Amino acid sequence: MTKSDTRQRILDRAAEIIHRKGFNNTGIQEILDSAEVPKGSFYFYFKSKEALGLALIDYHAQRFAALSEAVLKDSDGSPLERLKRFFDAVKERYEQEAWKSGCPIGNLTQEMASLNPAFQTKLKEVFARMATAMRDCLHEACAYGEINPSLDVESTADFIVNSWEGALLRMKAEGSIEPLKVFQEILFNRILKA
Amino acid sequence: MTKSDTRQRILDRAAEIIHRKGFNNTGIQEILDSAEVPKGSFYFYFKSKEALGLALIDYHAQRFAALSEAVLKDSDGSPLERLKRFFDAVKERYEQEAWKSGCPIGNLTQEMASLNPAFQTKLKEVFARMATAMRDCLHEACAYGEINPSLDVESTADFIVNSWEGALLRMKAEGSIEPLKVFQEILFNRILKA
Repeated sequence: MTKSDTRQRILDRAAEIIHRKGFNNTGIQEILDSAEVPKGSFYFYFKSKEALGLALIDYHAQRFAALSEAVLKDSDGSPLERLKRFFDAVKERYEQEAWKSGCPIGNLTQEMASLNPAFQTKLKEVFARMATAMRDCLHEACAYGEINPSLDVESTADFIVNSWEGALLRMKAEGSIEPLKVFQEILFNRILKA
Repeated sequence: MTKSDTRQRILDRAAEIIHRKGFNNTGIQEILDSAEVPKGSFYFYFKSKEALGLALIDYHAQRFAALSEAVLKDSDGSPLERLKRFFDAVKERYEQEAWKSGCPIGNLTQEMASLNPAFQTKLKEVFARMATAMRDCLHEACAYGEINPSLDVESTADFIVNSWEGALLRMKAEGSIEPLKVFQEILFNRILKA
């Protein structure tokens, strides 16, 4: 097992536990136990718990980027069809955990953005990248004649990212997928309608 | 100083500190110190830290209800004018703390809904009450001819509450009021437009 494998295993376990329990509420020891990494070797992989938290933001951002690359930039389907497939795919992920834990990036924002400037800077960047992915897709949809051309693409992209985060938050409060369905319904049949 | 005054002072201080630092990340002692209540007397006022957390949800819900009663049910202005004034008033509250801490109800949801069923039940109820306040206002706006009559008022009310929560989350990540402005722009000029 290489150093990088072990680091990845720590990240995988940290992502799961912190998503469920929160960052401040999770101890390093619990993560190491779950990753079966010997006590005391944490600092060989991460300089601090903060460094682990920042690496976790990258971890979740990469998952978003991979899904966005695979679905939003797919050659199959119109821009809006791909956007729908994208939200369906994310919805499916949340369905697997019974809509309990919410968005990991949203959770870390609520918990850490006001406590730690390094977290805030990184989270802000991740949201900006999410909005860029939406913006690119909306520009394509506009050129394709699929959405109302009077739409301000920049602000709509931000609105989509933010409203999706809000829908995931409400999903967590409800323990139900309903808020995600309402989001998709109003986004596609009202806001983006040509 | 009566028992109820002291309880209120503990709640005021807990609301401020937990809003800033998070529920799990705040110790009872820190709250008591800040409220200048003698060490050890906490359990005279609250059965447990959980009971304090649940009382805090009521505390924030009452603030929402008071603002909603004062602004949304005001006799002055059309339904949509009142809705705009409502979001402006909330925006002003967040401006006073430099958009740092986000929505206290949203924060508690992200942190506690999946960890504690009693929190989840109460948070779910609060969101439902927020949606009801929006729904009543939209019904009035519909009767007044201010919004598109094809709108599904129930789901739009939920969408507004959720998207507003998402805008507050993004505000926290950005340290900026911009996401709230984008929310208002798209809500009033696109979604609700008659």
